[in-house]
Amino acid sequence: MDIETYMHTLGRAAREASRAMARAETRVKDLALMKMAAAIERDAERLLAANARDLEAARAAGLSEALIDRLTLTPKTIAGMAEGLRQIAALPDPVGGITDLNYRPSGIQVGRMRVPLGVIGIIYEARPNVTADAAGLCLKSGNAAILRGGSEALHSNQAIAACVREGLAAAGLPEAAVQVVETADRAAVGHLITMKQYVDVIVPRGGKGLIERVSAEARVPVIKHLHGNCHVYVDDRADAAKAVRIVENAKTQRYGTCNTAESLLVARGIAERLLPELGRMLAGHGVEMRCCPEALAILTRTEIAGARLVPATEADWSEEYLAPIIAVKVVDGLDAAIAHINAYGSQHTDAIVTEDYSRARRFLREVDSSSVMVNASTRFADGFEYGLGAEIGISTDKIHARGPVGLEGLTSQKWVVLGDGHVRG
Amino acid sequence: MDIETYMHTLGRAAREASRAMARAETRVKDLALMKMAAAIERDAERLLAANARDLEAARAAGLSEALIDRLTLTPKTIAGMAEGLRQIAALPDPVGGITDLNYRPSGIQVGRMRVPLGVIGIIYEARPNVTADAAGLCLKSGNAAILRGGSEALHSNQAIAACVREGLAAAGLPEAAVQVVETADRAAVGHLITMKQYVDVIVPRGGKGLIERVSAEARVPVIKHLHGNCHVYVDDRADAAKAVRIVENAKTQRYGTCNTAESLLVARGIAERLLPELGRMLAGHGVEMRCCPEALAILTRTEIAGARLVPATEADWSEEYLAPIIAVKVVDGLDAAIAHINAYGSQHTDAIVTEDYSRARRFLREVDSSSVMVNASTRFADGFEYGLGAEIGISTDKIHARGPVGLEGLTSQKWVVLGDGHVRG
Repeated sequence: MDIETYMHTLGRAAREASRAMARAETRVKDLALMKMAAAIERDAERLLAANARDLEAARAAGLSEALIDRLTLTPKTIAGMAEGLRQIAALPDPVGGITDLNYRPSGIQVGRMRVPLGVIGIIYEARPNVTADAAGLCLKSGNAAILRGGSEALHSNQAIAACVREGLAAAGLPEAAVQVVETADRAAVGHLITMKQYVDVIVPRGGKGLIERVSAEARVPVIKHLHGNCHVYVDDRADAAKAVRIVENAKTQRYGTCNTAESLLVARGIAERLLPELGRMLAGHGVEMRCCPEALAILTRTEIAGARLVPATEADWSEEYLAPIIAVKVVDGLDAAIAHINAYGSQHTDAIVTEDYSRARRFLREVDSSSVMVNASTRFADGFEYGLGAEIGISTDKIHARGPVGLEGLTSQKWVVLGDGHVRG
Repeated sequence: MDIETYMHTLGRAAREASRAMARAETRVKDLALMKMAAAIERDAERLLAANARDLEAARAAGLSEALIDRLTLTPKTIAGMAEGLRQIAALPDPVGGITDLNYRPSGIQVGRMRVPLGVIGIIYEARPNVTADAAGLCLKSGNAAILRGGSEALHSNQAIAACVREGLAAAGLPEAAVQVVETADRAAVGHLITMKQYVDVIVPRGGKGLIERVSAEARVPVIKHLHGNCHVYVDDRADAAKAVRIVENAKTQRYGTCNTAESLLVARGIAERLLPELGRMLAGHGVEMRCCPEALAILTRTEIAGARLVPATEADWSEEYLAPIIAVKVVDGLDAAIAHINAYGSQHTDAIVTEDYSRARRFLREVDSSSVMVNASTRFADGFEYGLGAEIGISTDKIHARGPVGLEGLTSQKWVVLGDGHVRG
C-alpha cells in the first residue's frame, strides 16, 4: 500500500469511527479511559522494552541528549500516563450539553448543543507520553484521533496504542477511534494535514519548526501556537515587591516553557528606582539582560556583580529565548507598553504589574493576546491553572480557540431547533 | 502602485484601525452606525446615480438579468440599508463581556473576555447592499473590515463607502476601519485571502464558485458555507399533517435560499400512506421529484395529474438544486436516514418529522449538521429567526462558528487573569 492510500485508509476509518464516538455515552468513554490506564500499568514492562528499542536506535543515530530525554519512558512516566487518563475520565463530559434553549417569537425553541469536532489529527515529536494524553483528550471529547508521533518513538507509540485499543475494545468502542500512524515515512504528515474530507482539525505539538511546517502546508484548520514572546510590563504605579516577585517567577521558574516571560517593559517613571532591584534579582539567577540604551545606562550605573548586560538589537523584541535571557526596555508608560506588546508580541500571554485600576482595566481590554493578566505571573497561562483539567495545547490563533485548549476546544456547537409542526411565515 | 502594494497598504491601515476599533466604546460605535444610516438616506439620489452608472455598464456588457437585479439599488433598498444599520446599532455590544470569572485554588481569578477578531475581509458579488450590511456588522463587533464587492458594483460601493466613512469620522473613529477595495483587478482577492499578517478571517458571501475559489486559495481562515443540501426526514411516527406542512414550507417557500430543503427522506413504514399526499402537494407547486425506485413506484401508482417524476441518479442525493426540484428517497428508518444525511448532506440544516421522543433525541445528537431540527421547517435556519439580530453568513464549517453567524461569530474570547502579586508554585 502506498503512503497516500495508507493515510486515506486511516482517514476513512477515523471518519467512520467518529460517528460512533459522537454518540458514545459518557460512562462508556470513561470506561475505555479506565481500561486504557489499567492496560498501560499492566504492560509497563512491555512499554519499557519497546521504549528501549527506540532509545537504542536513537543513541545509534546520535540524537541529542534533550531528544533522548524526551523520548525516555520510566516507571514514573508510565504511571503518570495512566494517572492522566484517569484524570481525564474524571472530567465532566462536554459533549451534548445544550445551552440557551429559548422560545423565539415564531414559537420554535432554539439552542446550541456542544458536539465533537469529528476527526482530530495530532502531530507531535518523540514524546511517547503524548500518545496516551492526546488519545484520552480526543476520546473524552467524542472525537476520533489520528496520532502521528515522531518516528524515533515508533515502537513506544505502538506499544501504547495497543493499550489504547484494548481500552476502546473493552468498552465496545471502535478501535479506529484512536489510530497511530505506523510508518516512519515523513510524507504521512503531508497527507494528514491536507485530507480535509477525513480530518477536521490538526493540533501540532512540538517545536517551532514542526508547527511552522504544519501551519504553512495544512489545508485542514490548525490549532497551534507558533511561539511565546510573553511580556511583563511594570507600570510606574506598580508595587515594587509584587513586580520583583512576578518578574522572577515569570522569567526564572522555568526557562523552556512557552508562558515564560521573554520581554520586560518598565515605565520610565519607575525605571530608575526599580530596574536596579529587578536587575539584581535577574543577575542572581544568571539571566542575561538584552537592554535598550536607557535600561542599559541604568543597569550599568547600578554596578551589579556578575550581571550580563548586552545592548538589545531590534530582533530581541520579537525573540522567544527559551533560555536565561530577557529583553529589557524602558517605555514611556501604558500606551507605549500596549503598542510595543501588540507590535512585537506573539499574542500568547502578557501581564501588567500596577496598582492603578484604570490602567489595569485598559491593559486587559487593549492588549490583543490570548491571555492578559494583572499582577500575576505569565506562568499561570496553563490549562490546569485555568481549571480546564487538561490541555491539548495553547492556541495563539484567534479563530475557534485562544489560549490553553482543553476538552471544550476539541468541540464545537451546533444549533438545535425544536418545533411542533412550525413553518416559517 | 501595483496591486500587491495597494492591498498591503489597505491591510496595514486596517490592522492599525482595528486597535482603535477594539477599544471603542459602544456608544461611539452606535453613533457611527446612526450617522452612516443618516448619510445613506441623505445621499439617496447620489447612490442611485452611482448605481445607474454601474447598471449602464452591466447592461452594455450583457450581464444576466439576475445579476442586474441583484445589482440594482432602489429607494426602497437604500432605505433598507439605513434601517439595517440602525438595527445593528440597537443590538447588544458583544465586545468586552467577561464570563466565568472565578477564583482558582492558586488565588488568581480566571475568566474569559469577548474580543473582536481584528481585521475581517468580506468578499461578495455585485450586491451593493452588502457593503453597508457587512460594514455595520464588522464595526459593531469591534473589527476593522476590508470589503471587496463585485467589480460590477464598484461605483455603487464607492458611494456607499463614502457614507460609511462619514459616519466613522463623525464618531471620531478611524476611516480605515472600513475600507472598500477600489479596483476591479481580480488579483485583489488573491492578496486579500493570503495576507495573514493583516487579515484575521475571510467571509465570502456569494455563489458556490466564489466560495470554492476563496476556500481553495485562502491562507487566512475562512467562515463559509459551500452549499446547502438540507434534508427533511419524515419518520414513520410522523404526524402526517405536520409532515406535509413542513415539507411544503421547507421546499416551496423560497427555492433559491441555502436553507431550502433539497432532499426528502421518507420512512418505508409510512411511505405508502404519506408519499402520495406529499407528492400531490409538491406537484401542486410544480416541484419536480427525482425519486429512488421505491418512491417512483409509489408516486407513479398514485397518478398525480401534472406530476413530474424522474428517476434519481446517485448525483441527486448530493445536489443543491436552488430550484423547484427535490430528491425523494424511501429509507428503512431512523438509522438509514441519519447515515444518508451524514453521507450525502452538506452539514447545513436537517430536520426530522416525528412524534417519537427517542428518535427525535437521537436525530438531534447524531446528525452532524450546523442546525438540526425536530418538527420544524429547515427555512428557520437564519440569524434573525435564531435571535442573533443580524447575520453575516451561515457557516457549515465546524471550527469557530457553525450555522448562522451573527456578531458573536465575528468575535473570539481571550483569557483574563487577575492577581495580587500571585506567582506559580
